Amino acid sequence: MPNDTSLTADVGLLSPVWADTPVVAAVSDGAWLQAMLDAEAALSRAQARLGTVPASAARVITDAARADRLDLVALARQARESANPVVALVREFTARVADLDPAAAAYVHRGSTSQDILDTATVLVVDRALRLVRADLACVEEALAVLAREHRDTLIAGRTLALHAVPTTFGLKAAGWRHLVLDAVHKLDALAEGLPVQLGGAAGTLAGYLACAPEADPARYVPELTEAFAAELGLTAPLVPWHVLRTPVVDTAVAAAFLCGALGKIAVDVLSLTRTEVAEVHEPAPRGRGASSAMPHKRNPVLATAVRSAALQAPQLAATVLGCLPSEDERSAGAWHAEWEPLRALLRLAGGAAHQARELVCELSVDPRRMRANTRITGGQIVSERIAVVLAPLLGKAWARDLLNEASARSARTGEPLAEVLRQDGRASAVVADARLADLFEPEAYTGAAALLTDRALSRPLPPPGARTRTAAGPSAVVASRSA
Amino acid sequence: MPNDTSLTADVGLLSPVWADTPVVAAVSDGAWLQAMLDAEAALSRAQARLGTVPASAARVITDAARADRLDLVALARQARESANPVVALVREFTARVADLDPAAAAYVHRGSTSQDILDTATVLVVDRALRLVRADLACVEEALAVLAREHRDTLIAGRTLALHAVPTTFGLKAAGWRHLVLDAVHKLDALAEGLPVQLGGAAGTLAGYLACAPEADPARYVPELTEAFAAELGLTAPLVPWHVLRTPVVDTAVAAAFLCGALGKIAVDVLSLTRTEVAEVHEPAPRGRGASSAMPHKRNPVLATAVRSAALQAPQLAATVLGCLPSEDERSAGAWHAEWEPLRALLRLAGGAAHQARELVCELSVDPRRMRANTRITGGQIVSERIAVVLAPLLGKAWARDLLNEASARSARTGEPLAEVLRQDGRASAVVADARLADLFEPEAYTGAAALLTDRALSRPLPPPGARTRTAAGPSAVVASRSA
Amino acid sequence: MPNDTSLTADVGLLSPVWADTPVVAAVSDGAWLQAMLDAEAALSRAQARLGTVPASAARVITDAARADRLDLVALARQARESANPVVALVREFTARVADLDPAAAAYVHRGSTSQDILDTATVLVVDRALRLVRADLACVEEALAVLAREHRDTLIAGRTLALHAVPTTFGLKAAGWRHLVLDAVHKLDALAEGLPVQLGGAAGTLAGYLACAPEADPARYVPELTEAFAAELGLTAPLVPWHVLRTPVVDTAVAAAFLCGALGKIAVDVLSLTRTEVAEVHEPAPRGRGASSAMPHKRNPVLATAVRSAALQAPQLAATVLGCLPSEDERSAGAWHAEWEPLRALLRLAGGAAHQARELVCELSVDPRRMRANTRITGGQIVSERIAVVLAPLLGKAWARDLLNEASARSARTGEPLAEVLRQDGRASAVVADARLADLFEPEAYTGAAALLTDRALSRPLPPPGARTRTAAGPSAVVASRSA
Amino acid sequence: MPNDTSLTADVGLLSPVWADTPVVAAVSDGAWLQAMLDAEAALSRAQARLGTVPASAARVITDAARADRLDLVALARQARESANPVVALVREFTARVADLDPAAAAYVHRGSTSQDILDTATVLVVDRALRLVRADLACVEEALAVLAREHRDTLIAGRTLALHAVPTTFGLKAAGWRHLVLDAVHKLDALAEGLPVQLGGAAGTLAGYLACAPEADPARYVPELTEAFAAELGLTAPLVPWHVLRTPVVDTAVAAAFLCGALGKIAVDVLSLTRTEVAEVHEPAPRGRGASSAMPHKRNPVLATAVRSAALQAPQLAATVLGCLPSEDERSAGAWHAEWEPLRALLRLAGGAAHQARELVCELSVDPRRMRANTRITGGQIVSERIAVVLAPLLGKAWARDLLNEASARSARTGEPLAEVLRQDGRASAVVADARLADLFEPEAYTGAAALLTDRALSRPLPPPGARTRTAAGPSAVVASRSA
Repeated sequence: MPNDTSLTADVGLLSPVWADTPVVAAVSDGAWLQAMLDAEAALSRAQARLGTVPASAARVITDAARADRLDLVALARQARESANPVVALVREFTARVADLDPAAAAYVHRGSTSQDILDTATVLVVDRALRLVRADLACVEEALAVLAREHRDTLIAGRTLALHAVPTTFGLKAAGWRHLVLDAVHKLDALAEGLPVQLGGAAGTLAGYLACAPEADPARYVPELTEAFAAELGLTAPLVPWHVLRTPVVDTAVAAAFLCGALGKIAVDVLSLTRTEVAEVHEPAPRGRGASSAMPHKRNPVLATAVRSAALQAPQLAATVLGCLPSEDERSAGAWHAEWEPLRALLRLAGGAAHQARELVCELSVDPRRMRANTRITGGQIVSERIAVVLAPLLGKAWARDLLNEASARSARTGEPLAEVLRQDGRASAVVADARLADLFEPEAYTGAAALLTDRALSRPLPPPGARTRTAAGPSAVVASRSA
Repeated sequence: MPNDTSLTADVGLLSPVWADTPVVAAVSDGAWLQAMLDAEAALSRAQARLGTVPASAARVITDAARADRLDLVALARQARESANPVVALVREFTARVADLDPAAAAYVHRGSTSQDILDTATVLVVDRALRLVRADLACVEEALAVLAREHRDTLIAGRTLALHAVPTTFGLKAAGWRHLVLDAVHKLDALAEGLPVQLGGAAGTLAGYLACAPEADPARYVPELTEAFAAELGLTAPLVPWHVLRTPVVDTAVAAAFLCGALGKIAVDVLSLTRTEVAEVHEPAPRGRGASSAMPHKRNPVLATAVRSAALQAPQLAATVLGCLPSEDERSAGAWHAEWEPLRALLRLAGGAAHQARELVCELSVDPRRMRANTRITGGQIVSERIAVVLAPLLGKAWARDLLNEASARSARTGEPLAEVLRQDGRASAVVADARLADLFEPEAYTGAAALLTDRALSRPLPPPGARTRTAAGPSAVVASRSA
Repeated sequence: MPNDTSLTADVGLLSPVWADTPVVAAVSDGAWLQAMLDAEAALSRAQARLGTVPASAARVITDAARADRLDLVALARQARESANPVVALVREFTARVADLDPAAAAYVHRGSTSQDILDTATVLVVDRALRLVRADLACVEEALAVLAREHRDTLIAGRTLALHAVPTTFGLKAAGWRHLVLDAVHKLDALAEGLPVQLGGAAGTLAGYLACAPEADPARYVPELTEAFAAELGLTAPLVPWHVLRTPVVDTAVAAAFLCGALGKIAVDVLSLTRTEVAEVHEPAPRGRGASSAMPHKRNPVLATAVRSAALQAPQLAATVLGCLPSEDERSAGAWHAEWEPLRALLRLAGGAAHQARELVCELSVDPRRMRANTRITGGQIVSERIAVVLAPLLGKAWARDLLNEASARSARTGEPLAEVLRQDGRASAVVADARLADLFEPEAYTGAAALLTDRALSRPLPPPGARTRTAAGPSAVVASRSA
Repeated sequence: MPNDTSLTADVGLLSPVWADTPVVAAVSDGAWLQAMLDAEAALSRAQARLGTVPASAARVITDAARADRLDLVALARQARESANPVVALVREFTARVADLDPAAAAYVHRGSTSQDILDTATVLVVDRALRLVRADLACVEEALAVLAREHRDTLIAGRTLALHAVPTTFGLKAAGWRHLVLDAVHKLDALAEGLPVQLGGAAGTLAGYLACAPEADPARYVPELTEAFAAELGLTAPLVPWHVLRTPVVDTAVAAAFLCGALGKIAVDVLSLTRTEVAEVHEPAPRGRGASSAMPHKRNPVLATAVRSAALQAPQLAATVLGCLPSEDERSAGAWHAEWEPLRALLRLAGGAAHQARELVCELSVDPRRMRANTRITGGQIVSERIAVVLAPLLGKAWARDLLNEASARSARTGEPLAEVLRQDGRASAVVADARLADLFEPEAYTGAAALLTDRALSRPLPPPGARTRTAAGPSAVVASRSA
């Protein structure tokens, strides 16, 4: 691999959904490298807290733990030799530490194992990426709340199986989008709340750590080391090592995929409403946005397209991570390794989709006039359900239904409004006054509880950032969260 | 389709993991049919509570709601005409009700829509299936706790990437299995706690229901109807209809897939430990179990095999359900319909796997002597980490490591015990007394915190059944749970 | 499991795409059972041909090989004991044979192993299911050819990223659908051509078969037995056993998933063109078809919906089968077992989708007037590409593009036709005569090579049924096809 | 995104399977960019051949088409604005051309559309990556042929469901691996043979190209332009544009996933045979390979681990691409875009796995003594099938089986050899002489047709590179391959 990464690296040329979004740097190889160094440094500080590493050594190790001092590409190359990047990293990092202070070098990666460092780094990367995602989602939520409130009573055709069904409001649609986004936020917050460090040593017994602390009482040292490590990194201390109990990784993958799907719901609705013949909403279109290389008139819905592309990719990546749950023995030969790229890909898709969705919903252009106009194009069929309900007690349920089936079919065939067909037929007019029938045919008058449900949905709050109480402050924040 | 379902139906011939397990009946087409009828009946009773359906009609509807009075195969055939089974069901069920009381027939499916009935039925089926799964998991948990306690100090080789790593205990392994099962239980309980009815009408506005209750105040009627419907079925009342906000379905799919993966972890470990050359555990083998059609000596690990087959199938089924999150408009043309079979398949796999796992872990035969013997077969290499830690301060970390690399390679090549190689080499003997070195080579003395971690893991309780407070008792149990 | 399978079996209630289609019986548990019996019978006849089983025994075995004489549900139940249904089947079938002729019973399953029987049965089921699929696809192809020819010049808006792009023809669209179906047919035919029997014995060495033929020269006996077995079943003889070389199974899964996706392309296009605002095509609507349980006017596109639901499920099922390729050792503990249900599900989805697609395309209602009318709704923007090409050499490429960008934006904003905006602007009129410009704006005049490409596409033939030369005729048809 | 790609790019740190392998550069963003430029240049030359672009312009365009003259990161950033990278590329590339020759700039991307360029570039990248893969596979095939020949008669335990079944040979195992690799090669070669350019214009009608060639006869111009474009790039000319007929992309994805699975079969077998207790094969271990960060003795099977990690990821990526087959309209809003990253990921995994597998099988260390020794560890149970076959005619099939069931169980329980148990039992000795029984118990004498099947498998040739006849030589090589 040449050192000129511009020719070998993946900078997002094929990923409009995440190219140029903040999450890219947060989950890059460089970010993972820094997180591994952060884990090594935190481990040494935790051991220093407990007296098994000199404080001075921990300081040097911490000072040296900078990704820009290591050759990322060379490390990637060497990762192949041990099927993970940590072995080479420890070798190179130890040399960097030795450059600063030969005595400190002996305390790098003390008692540790590759998986402790890589898993903890993964969790750190997840934590950092989720903060970006969460910030974007707060904006998405707010914009959707505004849309829902503003269009609480904006009439729009409810559509099922591609056809007009009954009227609804655009506000309820936006409130539903927001509700689904809040479901995703809840999952992400619950996940972020409990992200655990990994600390188990070569096979999950912490034997290596204990061998380096021969004086310590294991019954105290093990939880204290775990909690100190977690405190240093602002993560939680797990009840037991999770080398081959991959719940945190699976939960991350699933939450990211859920988010992609939730935003994908918004995207497919925007695409449906954007179609040339429907034209009820339009994507924000700053200069150059949505341009075609061939057709000057095009303003393609590129944000919705990008978000949908994430929703199409994410579920299968989550399946890969779920499929790695059966990790044999104390470390799987392959299942652990197969998690890493899908997890990163999911974070990128989720982060990118959240960023694109933010712009999409913040500046979505809504055309209430067109929405209202479209409810008229079926000549009243959009309220056939209502007419059936009203006629049922008057004509009998089955007869009423037959009448409306026939009349609807005729209306669809001839283009005559359904009200007119019924008037000519006479059976309905015999039991309902014409004026009353005309009123019943107003789509605005048949939106049911749409406005009410919009209010209900809006009553659900966005969880405050404070709901995520875990901080990097110290041991008091550290709890054996998975046992809670 | 002939009426002789024995020739057309799927009775489990190709599914050892779920054939003949209780979940099969709970998620069968017949169970779904009964659940749809339960939903129709509960809807009429809920409307009766609110005065929009006569109590007598609700009683007749409830009496008629028995799956054995309908022709399941004929309904399946007709489902094709409307891409869901509810349209035909309502027609046939209305006729059954009319047979009992013509006046009641007008109140069947009143104001309702197919999706309200089918989604609510799905949730009921999920609820019923999960109760079976939960019962099996309680036994799995208990058996694993027994194994963990009993083998808290049973030495076994820790294995990573297919090779002996460092010693651990079988108790910690079993405690880890239990921990993962508890993770699954938490997900299933959280899911079961919040399973919501669906009540939205044709496009999620409840307009049809309101049209049938012209006197009612919508602001009261909508929540009251939803809560009454939920109370009748022992489910929760959602804040808003979730026609196209498919969180409950996705959560079910993911929880089931997680469970399959968690049990799959146990299965791959059992398979690993069962291998002829390892022979540390054996599956329960009642007469006939595990027989081969060709080889009399075989006692195949069929339970672990079946459980693993579930873990290999479940993630992709969950991906399908996740992929249906982007449901366009107010009802997707296809995405809704693509959820049903994968969801059922997941419930069957999860239920079957839990049932097989129960027998697997309850009667697993463990051979501590063989486990101990196997820790000896590498001639001490299994504790090379420990020797390296001890020698590092005495010889320098790098030198100690080089020495052990060389000595391990020689031991592996010649078959001489590592201790003997080191003794001959002399460098280690120069700094550590031979007797001390011999002690260090005892695998029993290098299990680290295995026993302690086993205790920690066992301190995590199985959530009591009471933690699942939702019952069918009445409205008080009904909360807008998804908003909590 | 109760014997009343109507309550436990899956008869299609949740699968509108395959309920009541011919493939259901072809891939049912009963069909698989019959195929296993066919394999046992064929094996005995093949051995009889080679003199290692008495001809009379083979005749009795063949006579007894009827699924209706065995208890399918009981076999499914017992399958759990050996993680496959063959062990119990051999026991029960041997008893049935012994009832007819005790001497023949010794020759049942002679030298064989479960996997030989189950894999061969699977291939037989695949073969039988594919014949049904192929027949439906021949009708689909023919109907699409008719649509393509008939609408070779029917103007329709070409749509990209949800928006009108440039004009095309409905004929080209239909020709494209047909092209994709032919791609699927080629894959299915290639697959059907090479479907191999499985014959390897307990671990792929045929040792059991040879032990039963102590006089035979293995170098002749092995290929002859394989070829005789294949000839008896109308399948091909593989070069080597494929116990853990799962190409035939993977190829089947992928071909079925491809077909679902190809038909899914037709479905999403039909749904797009069916939308209420577009209304360019309509599904066939015999009485009752597409009805809603709530809305009398609805004629839901249920066939396209069902087909799309298959396309959403199939890829992940194919992934499961692909994921079983890494089958460890001489028979995987789980990967083999995880193939069966996904494979059957894929055959059902493919068979069901082909059957629904047949009706969908054979009776699709096409509205050329509406198609033409819709090309007018953008006020000429649909040909902006053409205007840009014409103006580029006259105004400069960049200037021409800027002019059209501006004019299109204004046209979209004000609703004025693009031609009118350009006329008022004057810059285009300065270089192109108004009449010429008006001509350029005719959508009919800008369909490019659509008609020509339709003809080209139609020139590709449906492979004749005769292309599938393999028959059940005898040994001459048997070739070591996988080596060809 | 900062320009320092080392911090944002994915250089393989988390992908031991492909880090530092040749395929990485071949499928990088830079490679895709160059392929897009190659497509633009080839298009201009093809148009020059047909006289619709000046030859001089085509020369300048070709000269300018160098990726190193464009800012890759900036292009990736701008790709977001149009949901694909081509719009910005055309703008920037036109400026580069204009720098060289302003007159030529007008002929860049003439009549074209983004998808023609991106799809053709994708096919070029696939073609280039497959050449690398194919070269590695030729080495894999050769090494496996050597292993199969060399170990044609090397006894090894056949293992099914984790247990010893009957004996086989390591040669047959290696021959099976080779057979599966050849299946993959056939798929890749068939794919490579037919890789088509994309040429359809904005909506698949080539209207833009024809508008730029107003004098041309479309019936000749369309096929000639397509064939000239294909000839310039050494690809094939498709019968019709495949904008939304995604067979080439799906076939690529599936072939790559198949290869990963085929190599994954080798990997899981190597892992199974490498286990400490089995120890029959060892990975090549140059200095530093397979090292652990904690345990000096470890020589982890890192190549097999990496290859398996690819096999665990690939199927789901292929599912994503299969799931994009239903591309609505003339270009999907999202399904097209969701193909790109999974396809690249599949090429990387396949290319990386092939490269690792090459080293794995070329230098695999095989221990025939250990293999033979392991066949002895069950005390003769490994040939119980044979004993059953021999005793069946002498004792009756059922009695013989019962006897062996009992004796095997006792042998397993007590550790006594099965032969000894039988001898003591006496029933077998009564009908078979002890010496004969001892002979029957020799595992070497019960390998069935293993050697013969090895020879058969080896008779299947690797397709010669010449079988891939398509070259970049000129129009004569161009055929409407998809119609063939």
